[in-house]
Amino acid sequence: MAPSAITPPHTHAVQQASELTAAAVAKKLAETASSVARKPNGVEPTLAPLDASKLIFTKTTTPMTVPELGSPIIATASQCSDHMVTAVWKATTGWEAPELRPYGNLSLAPTASCLHYATECFEGMKMYRGYDGKLRLFRPDCNAKRMLMSATRISLPGFDPEELEKLMLAIVAVDGPKWLPKSRAGECLYLRPSMIGSAGALGVAAPKEATLFIIATFMPKLEQPKGLRLLASTEGIRAWPGGFGFAKVGANYGPTLMATKTAAERGYHQVLWLLDGQVTEAGASNLLVVWKTREGQLQLVTAPLDDKIILDGVTRRSVLQLAHERLANGSTGLEPIEIVERKYTMEEVADAVKEGRMVEAFACGTAFFVAPVCAIGYRETDLDIPMKRGDSGEYAHAIKTWLIDIMYGREQHGWGVIVEEKEEL
Amino acid sequence: MAPSAITPPHTHAVQQASELTAAAVAKKLAETASSVARKPNGVEPTLAPLDASKLIFTKTTTPMTVPELGSPIIATASQCSDHMVTAVWKATTGWEAPELRPYGNLSLAPTASCLHYATECFEGMKMYRGYDGKLRLFRPDCNAKRMLMSATRISLPGFDPEELEKLMLAIVAVDGPKWLPKSRAGECLYLRPSMIGSAGALGVAAPKEATLFIIATFMPKLEQPKGLRLLASTEGIRAWPGGFGFAKVGANYGPTLMATKTAAERGYHQVLWLLDGQVTEAGASNLLVVWKTREGQLQLVTAPLDDKIILDGVTRRSVLQLAHERLANGSTGLEPIEIVERKYTMEEVADAVKEGRMVEAFACGTAFFVAPVCAIGYRETDLDIPMKRGDSGEYAHAIKTWLIDIMYGREQHGWGVIVEEKEEL
Repeated sequence: MAPSAITPPHTHAVQQASELTAAAVAKKLAETASSVARKPNGVEPTLAPLDASKLIFTKTTTPMTVPELGSPIIATASQCSDHMVTAVWKATTGWEAPELRPYGNLSLAPTASCLHYATECFEGMKMYRGYDGKLRLFRPDCNAKRMLMSATRISLPGFDPEELEKLMLAIVAVDGPKWLPKSRAGECLYLRPSMIGSAGALGVAAPKEATLFIIATFMPKLEQPKGLRLLASTEGIRAWPGGFGFAKVGANYGPTLMATKTAAERGYHQVLWLLDGQVTEAGASNLLVVWKTREGQLQLVTAPLDDKIILDGVTRRSVLQLAHERLANGSTGLEPIEIVERKYTMEEVADAVKEGRMVEAFACGTAFFVAPVCAIGYRETDLDIPMKRGDSGEYAHAIKTWLIDIMYGREQHGWGVIVEEKEEL
Repeated sequence: MAPSAITPPHTHAVQQASELTAAAVAKKLAETASSVARKPNGVEPTLAPLDASKLIFTKTTTPMTVPELGSPIIATASQCSDHMVTAVWKATTGWEAPELRPYGNLSLAPTASCLHYATECFEGMKMYRGYDGKLRLFRPDCNAKRMLMSATRISLPGFDPEELEKLMLAIVAVDGPKWLPKSRAGECLYLRPSMIGSAGALGVAAPKEATLFIIATFMPKLEQPKGLRLLASTEGIRAWPGGFGFAKVGANYGPTLMATKTAAERGYHQVLWLLDGQVTEAGASNLLVVWKTREGQLQLVTAPLDDKIILDGVTRRSVLQLAHERLANGSTGLEPIEIVERKYTMEEVADAVKEGRMVEAFACGTAFFVAPVCAIGYRETDLDIPMKRGDSGEYAHAIKTWLIDIMYGREQHGWGVIVEEKEEL
C-alpha cells in the first residue's frame, strides 16, 4: 500500500490544523478573560490576578548615565534605563504584586523552563518624545492584548491586558523623563515587555512559575536610506499552518537567525520568508506591496491573518487602517488604491516587476517602522523595486509621515497614548 | 490572476526547503569542524576552542543531601546534584576555560538573547549505576555530536564534541559517587547539557556570548505500567519541512505544551504528532510500530530522518541497530522482522489495527526509555494497540531488556561508557 494513496490532501489537513490551533488559543483566551475578571458572579477568583494597583516601587540608588545620541553603546541594543518592572506568577497562588525596581540581572535556576523549552514571549513597542513635549506610547492596548495571546499559545499564564498596559505606562512614567527628555523631541526608546517560564523543573510541561518583566532600551536606527534589500528564503521556512507563526514567541526568532546570517553574507538586510511560494513576512516585519494588476487596478497587497502564519503586526494593522481611511478614496492627492489582504506569491511579485506593474514595496514593524524595499533577491537575480521618491515610494512615504505625526504628537490621534510623567523622580 | 495557478507544487517546494536547510546545517558543521581543529595547517585558531583539559574545579562548601528514592522532591525534576559545569563563549575570544563549580542560579541580563529569541539547545542523557557497581553513560558521543548540530541550527557557537563529552564525564565523575551511589544499582540520574545565548542585546541576531552548562538531576520515572495512551494531534503540528524539528532546540518544546495539556485533559499521556497525516513523533519521543503488511510480512516501521522532521534519537538509533543485529534474522526466538524507515501515515496505522495486523507499538527516547503504547486516540475513537505480554509487546520487551543490560553493565558493550569516579571527593 503506497502511503501517498491515503494521505489526505495537503491543503485540507493544513486548513484543519490551522483552524484548530487558532480555536484552541481562542478558547483558552476566553477562559483567561473570565478567570481574570475580578469578581465573576461576585466570587473572588482563587488565583490572584495581575494587579497594577499593587505596584511596589523601589527607586534605584545607583542611577546610570543616559548615553549621548549617536553613542556607540546605543548600537548594542543593551543599554537599559534605570528601572524595570517585574511580576511573578505561581500556579498555586497566581500573580504576586508587581514591582518597579532597579534594573538588574535576573537570577534563574539552571533548570528554568525558559532556558530549555522556549517558554517565553515578548512584545516590541516604543515610547516617543513628541514635538509637543509629551511622551506617548503607540496603541499599547494592541501590544498588551497580543502578549496575552502569545502567552496563551506558549502555555504561560493569562492576565488582564489592561493591567499589563498600566505596568507599561508605569515604567515609562518613571524613566521617560530622564531617559527620553524633552530635549530629545522626535526620538524614541524601545520598550520590551517579556514573560518567561521561570519554574525550575526539567519536566516538559507548562511552567508552574512565570516572570513578567518590562525593560526599556536604546535601539539603533534600523532604517536603510537606500532601501531594504530582501532575500527570498530558499534555506528554510519560518512558520507553518498549525504552528505558531502568529504568536510573538521566542521560538519564531532563534530558528531564523541562520538564514538571516546567510542573507547578510550575500548582501541582503533581511530574509523574505516564503511558504509554498507565498510571501509571508520580511525578517521580523510584515511586507506590503503596491502594484497594478494586469487589468490596471492599483492595489496595496499584504498577506492575510486568517491562516495564522504571520504576526498580526500593530504597525501592519495601523498602516492598513490609515490606507483604508486616507488612501482608498484618493482624498490625499495620491491615486486611489484598493487595499487587499490575501495570499500572494513570490511569482506574482516577480511578474509584477518584470511587467513593469510594481509600484513599491515596504516592510513594516515596530523595529523597522516603515521601511521601503529597493530589491528582492529571488532565483539568483535581484528584482528591482521602484522607490519613486528616491528613498521611498509615495505610498510608504505618506503612511510613514502620518504615523510619525501621530507618534510624535503633530497629529492628535487616539492611537497616541500620552503618558503622565513623574517629573519629581 | 489566481494565486493558486502559479503556486509551485507543494511537495516540490517542501522538499527543496528541507534539503537546503539540512545542507546549510551540514555546511556550517563542516566549517565548525575545521575551526575547532587545534592547529589546522599548524596555525593556532584565532578563537579559543572549548578545551576540557582547562577545567577549573571549585568544590562546593555547602553540599546538599541526596534525597531518598521515592522522595517527593524527585517528582519535581528540580533536585540537582552538588555541582554543575559552565563554560562561556564570546564572539571576540572564543571559549573561556570551563568550570566545574557549585550548583547555583545563573545570573542573566534581562536582555539576554535566550530569554527573548529562544537561542537555546540541550541534550537529554542519563548516568546509570550498574549492577556491577560501575557508573556508565550511554553513547555520550551521540549526544555530544547532536548538541553541536542543534547549536549550529540555532546560531550558537560550535565546539569539538569530544571536549563536550569530556565535560559530561567530569561532572559524572565528581557527583556520581555521592548522588548515584553503589547502593543504588539499577537506578539512574538525568544529565542535561544545555547551551543558551547569554549576550545581553535585544537585536535579532546570532548571540555574541553563549553559556554552556551541564547539570545532573533526579527525574521521576515516566513509565506507564498499563502502556502509553497517545492522542493523534488535531490541534497543531510539531515540525515542518524546512523548519527545525530535527534539532534539539527549545523552540521544539514550548509550542507543544498546549496540545500536550489538552491531551492530558482528555486522558492521554502524550500527543502523537502528525504532519500531513504522517506519523512523526510521540510526545518528545520517537515512535515505532510493529505490524504485518497485508502481504503477511512482519515489519518494524518508524519515520525516516531524511526529511529532517524528527529528532535523530539516540534510543531510536540504538533500537534500530539492535533490531538489525538481533531481530532481523530471528536468532533470538522471536519471528524475524523486517526493519523499515519510511514515511507512514496514521491511516495506515488505523487500517492495521482495524484489520488485526497491528502487533505492537512503542515510543522510545531518553526520558521515556522504551515505552509500550496501549492506545492511540484518532478521529474520536481509541485504537487499541496489542501488548502481548500484558505490560508490553514482545519486541519492545526484548529490545528494552537488551538496552537495560547494556546500560547497567549486565552486558559489556561499547555503548556503555564507564566513568572513572573520583571517590576521594
